[in-house]
Amino acid sequence: MSDAPRSHAATSALLTDHYELTMAASYLARSMTATATFDLFVRSLPPERRFLVAVGLADAVDYLAQVRFTDSDLEYLRAGGTFAEQFLDYLADFRFSGEVWAIPEGEVCFPDEPLLRVSAPLIEAQVVETALLNTVAHQSAIASKAARVALAAGEHAFVDFGARRTHGPEAALRGARAAYIAGAASTSNVLAGKAYGIPVSGTMAHSYVMAFADERDALRTFARDFPSKAVLLIDTYDTVEGAHRVVEVARELADEGVRIVGVRLDSGDLGPLAHRVREILDRGGLRQTRIIASGDLDEHRIAALVGDGAPIDSFGVGTQMGVSADAPALGAVYKLVEYDGRPALKLSTGKVTLPGRKQVWREVRDGVLTVDTIGLEHETGIAGRPILAQVMVDGTPVDGRGTLEQARERCTRALKELPPSLRDLEARDVAPPVRTSRELDALVAHMTNEVR
Amino acid sequence: MSDAPRSHAATSALLTDHYELTMAASYLARSMTATATFDLFVRSLPPERRFLVAVGLADAVDYLAQVRFTDSDLEYLRAGGTFAEQFLDYLADFRFSGEVWAIPEGEVCFPDEPLLRVSAPLIEAQVVETALLNTVAHQSAIASKAARVALAAGEHAFVDFGARRTHGPEAALRGARAAYIAGAASTSNVLAGKAYGIPVSGTMAHSYVMAFADERDALRTFARDFPSKAVLLIDTYDTVEGAHRVVEVARELADEGVRIVGVRLDSGDLGPLAHRVREILDRGGLRQTRIIASGDLDEHRIAALVGDGAPIDSFGVGTQMGVSADAPALGAVYKLVEYDGRPALKLSTGKVTLPGRKQVWREVRDGVLTVDTIGLEHETGIAGRPILAQVMVDGTPVDGRGTLEQARERCTRALKELPPSLRDLEARDVAPPVRTSRELDALVAHMTNEVR
Repeated sequence: MSDAPRSHAATSALLTDHYELTMAASYLARSMTATATFDLFVRSLPPERRFLVAVGLADAVDYLAQVRFTDSDLEYLRAGGTFAEQFLDYLADFRFSGEVWAIPEGEVCFPDEPLLRVSAPLIEAQVVETALLNTVAHQSAIASKAARVALAAGEHAFVDFGARRTHGPEAALRGARAAYIAGAASTSNVLAGKAYGIPVSGTMAHSYVMAFADERDALRTFARDFPSKAVLLIDTYDTVEGAHRVVEVARELADEGVRIVGVRLDSGDLGPLAHRVREILDRGGLRQTRIIASGDLDEHRIAALVGDGAPIDSFGVGTQMGVSADAPALGAVYKLVEYDGRPALKLSTGKVTLPGRKQVWREVRDGVLTVDTIGLEHETGIAGRPILAQVMVDGTPVDGRGTLEQARERCTRALKELPPSLRDLEARDVAPPVRTSRELDALVAHMTNEVR
Repeated sequence: MSDAPRSHAATSALLTDHYELTMAASYLARSMTATATFDLFVRSLPPERRFLVAVGLADAVDYLAQVRFTDSDLEYLRAGGTFAEQFLDYLADFRFSGEVWAIPEGEVCFPDEPLLRVSAPLIEAQVVETALLNTVAHQSAIASKAARVALAAGEHAFVDFGARRTHGPEAALRGARAAYIAGAASTSNVLAGKAYGIPVSGTMAHSYVMAFADERDALRTFARDFPSKAVLLIDTYDTVEGAHRVVEVARELADEGVRIVGVRLDSGDLGPLAHRVREILDRGGLRQTRIIASGDLDEHRIAALVGDGAPIDSFGVGTQMGVSADAPALGAVYKLVEYDGRPALKLSTGKVTLPGRKQVWREVRDGVLTVDTIGLEHETGIAGRPILAQVMVDGTPVDGRGTLEQARERCTRALKELPPSLRDLEARDVAPPVRTSRELDALVAHMTNEVR
């Protein structure tokens, strides 16, 4: 689906919790190889979220199509002494042969809705748990945060500046992609630009200014070197002074055909500073020069700046979006919902699971999402369109999984469909618009009774 | 330093913010190739931290030794149209040739102290900024969180269960390593076990129990398959019932030589449940069977359980440690402190940088860390031992960078040396025990004057 550089870790079958292997060994010893269905879902939203954006499917499908135990993996397991040769032989030929349904990337979703539904021989479905959770939950967490930034920014652009703050290089790549799906205009991450075709942006840092003895020299030099692309950083010493210097430099270099595309503010009280800078630029004849603001921004600060009418054209968002700082983990789970044709139910305190193979039907009226109904796959008569689509058949990715741009368009559309209560960035305790179908309710009631 | 699977992203020179390249191009065009020194440091601690643990140096050094622009990278940059051929030619031969000093992995450290100090021709030192920040800040964030878990657990063991919750597969690997340095007894992550030689643990999940029609069958089967290693999960339906079933199964299988190593509780009120389960196991003759607790644990919950005397032998810690949930980003920065022999200073609001090539001297009295002094590299007469060590010379890693076990021992020692105020998990507003030297103060005063 993409030609992104992938770590060996990303397709290694050893990227799994040890218990997946011990369980698998026990299943094999007992020939428990009937088909199992697992749902990957989130039990409840973090308090800071009203909805999720599903992302990570592309990497999940790539993983399932490629996952292997290498010879050196098997050697490592053999040396551990826990596993029988029969099991290691089985792992040598391990392939994922199952079927997968999923909520497409970019789609909005809610708790209890299966982001992935995996049906495969029990061992195959079990061994891939850890990697699937890791892949889908991370990317959906970042996309869900980025979608809130998109809602705050509205018609203003925002740019992913997260590369230096994510949890490793791979997270920087995957995060840039998730942010782009959620609406980021570009990324500062060059490798993400190359890997995914995302527009790349960014021009200068404080260190550049500091490498010159005089700030004016730095601004002048950079503008000359990038006569039609320079965004000048103006807060290294004093933002207002910096704005005046940009005007001077622009005048000085106008004859050379140099045009200052933008200035960037990266510290201080951004709203008032943007007003002062805008005024200085305008009076200096730089009405076309855009103002970019950055510096520990999140959706709340952006919403406040936009609400106050700060003359900021574009927001650079790093840390807060790159690690989804206020909700860095979604607590996604991967639960057995059917084994050998028998629905399965877990009743641990606070951890009830909806049994059976399920689909989600979404009702949208007059362009507004009204309700999702989680029902059993083969139920009929539920209003709305089914949102889970099949993405793998017999271990092979289905055609037409869609492009990154389509995922981005899907997200833009889905965010527009959100009702005001779900778009509200400050809201708390809004119930997700999700219900269960009558047949599903009946199944849960029946099974709870039976177990108890 | 390790044979961990590394993503292409982890050594790609394109894993950089775009502005690093535009600045580099400008430097090259001006022949600004004098030696620059950058410090990688944290300006202030997150409110939830009293100290940091430095981790990530191994990957940072590997990156610096291997970083390259590939032909396809250059093709991508060429297609963007921003860069001149002269610059692309330069990048084709790009190697990091500088010197690096660092706080060794596992060492405790504080704000303003350089975790890395990089001296290299300006362009080289600049282009590696994003990747170094990404690598060191992430791993130090996880290690710093894990160190708090280690302080809470005290003599009890804790295990890294984070693999499914980290930000991608690479973060799962690096996180397991960081947690191990900070004191984790083992990890559930099999790939981390293989890559780093970390002990691996974990036996069964709820899905195993649910794949059987009867809980007793599940427990019995698993115990038989792993007669000397089984840790049985007992909360799938009802924890207390589960404990009784373990006693039954143990009795039933005693003649077969089966020994139940442990039981795991993963939900509910863990303290009271552990007491009841301990009682049931003891009365059932299973005094040797250990109790492992898991389920959204962090240092606060572990400290409370340990403080209440809950009979829990080992804690499984996943989400909270795997993403350092309460402080998922450290806000590390990489700042120019010297260029061409001239100290550099940044005065942006709230972002003052200490100029010059620096060292940190640590005073430990009677086994307790009393104060760190940040001074200029060549200062003499500062009390304590210098903690930054040279790790690269002329772009080549120096010998004797130490093993993972040495980093772990260093961390154990460093945590023991912390004074009570820094060990306190609930403390807020404790000033870090860091001061600046007289010569450094004088330099800052002189330069501030000069700039203003």
